[in-house]
Amino acid sequence: MRNIKLTVQYDGTNYHGWQIQENAVTVQEVIENSLKKLTGIKPRVSGCGRTDTGVHAQNYVCSFKSESTIPCDRFPYALNRFLPEDVVCKKAEDMDPEFDAHKSAVGKTYSYLILNSQYSDVFYNNRAWHYRYKLDFDKMKKASEFFCGTHDFIGFAASGFTVKTTVRTIHHINMEKKDDLIKIDICGNGFLYNMVRIITGTLVFVGNGKIDVNDIPDIIESKDRKRAGITAPACGLYLSEVYY
Amino acid sequence: MRNIKLTVQYDGTNYHGWQIQENAVTVQEVIENSLKKLTGIKPRVSGCGRTDTGVHAQNYVCSFKSESTIPCDRFPYALNRFLPEDVVCKKAEDMDPEFDAHKSAVGKTYSYLILNSQYSDVFYNNRAWHYRYKLDFDKMKKASEFFCGTHDFIGFAASGFTVKTTVRTIHHINMEKKDDLIKIDICGNGFLYNMVRIITGTLVFVGNGKIDVNDIPDIIESKDRKRAGITAPACGLYLSEVYY
Repeated sequence: MRNIKLTVQYDGTNYHGWQIQENAVTVQEVIENSLKKLTGIKPRVSGCGRTDTGVHAQNYVCSFKSESTIPCDRFPYALNRFLPEDVVCKKAEDMDPEFDAHKSAVGKTYSYLILNSQYSDVFYNNRAWHYRYKLDFDKMKKASEFFCGTHDFIGFAASGFTVKTTVRTIHHINMEKKDDLIKIDICGNGFLYNMVRIITGTLVFVGNGKIDVNDIPDIIESKDRKRAGITAPACGLYLSEVYY
Repeated sequence: MRNIKLTVQYDGTNYHGWQIQENAVTVQEVIENSLKKLTGIKPRVSGCGRTDTGVHAQNYVCSFKSESTIPCDRFPYALNRFLPEDVVCKKAEDMDPEFDAHKSAVGKTYSYLILNSQYSDVFYNNRAWHYRYKLDFDKMKKASEFFCGTHDFIGFAASGFTVKTTVRTIHHINMEKKDDLIKIDICGNGFLYNMVRIITGTLVFVGNGKIDVNDIPDIIESKDRKRAGITAPACGLYLSEVYY
């Protein structure tokens, strides 16, 4: 039995996130159905994590067991014939039996796009947060540095999910601005529910002056969700990389 | 009576081009209907030119007569409330009575996007020509130079449209490659039907070796459509700028 790792890109606009649920189309379901068409057997695909409705992925990783004899270099072409056009398999790799896309992951990078312009851009509909008011990028960049390191991020998590610990380590945050587009890359060992979107919303509140950049350490320390910024919309969020 | 010039961006995926036609949704129709909702009167909007089904625009220009008292700096915000999200008004200007978006235009820049990668990219679906085979960018760039200047471009036009002359001047062609994305900008005083798409298809045939770069002057001179390359798909084409 092979243990196959897939790297997949998807536009999350038309999906209710990754994980299979009743009465809603999810990316996991679409991939499992396509694998059934390709290999004859519907596998249970293990994903590297949940993504919310409307969240995108550049390099989502999932894995499944299969008796398929299709070699890895042909696998993406073969699978893409069955996938809808907003989900693309970019890579297939044979892994050791113990590899699991979720349990083996040691870190991830998420990216967030903010379109900071007077008018929206049709080519960023559903792909960036259109924020029309002035943002001070330099202050946002300075604020982002305070999030790096190991902290209890419970003040930057949505409720409703149970985890053993709310302590996470952010390895680094990279921020770039090109024309009207701000890109935030956050690399860490793990993320709480909505953590990237709440950090982004907090950086936007620094950018628009609602939060003082020097208050960020105190806000993190307070562990108080109410002191952080809003939850940035799902459409600007991309799962960029998963590390093993 | 005001004569108002609008600059508009649109994603052409869901439209049967610019020009109003029966039984199909067009950008012109959507703008005229939105102007009626905003001003109370449905104007006839003059566009800077036709675009085909699926072709996009970054800065399409159109004009119309109106008694509206909405000032130009507020006009885009007001109109965007009525436009669908894939059409955005970016600018409104009061013009002299004789200005007409079509007749007053003295030149245009079109851009074409080619995604030259092994697998498609979901974020370029309907927005670039996904061409998976290897392209020699340097040869394509060299070939592009031969198109500059004044030529009879009848060999690079689709049939079915009557024009007084098929002679056009291309002022310059700029080609850039960033990662897997090739961008071709073509600036000229006017373009025949499908001319940019046929020039792009010809450049791709140079890139894949089907046409020798040094044969381009002879192919232009021959005025023979059959010697040029294929017509590149509509989805990669963008009207970028109109000059007055």
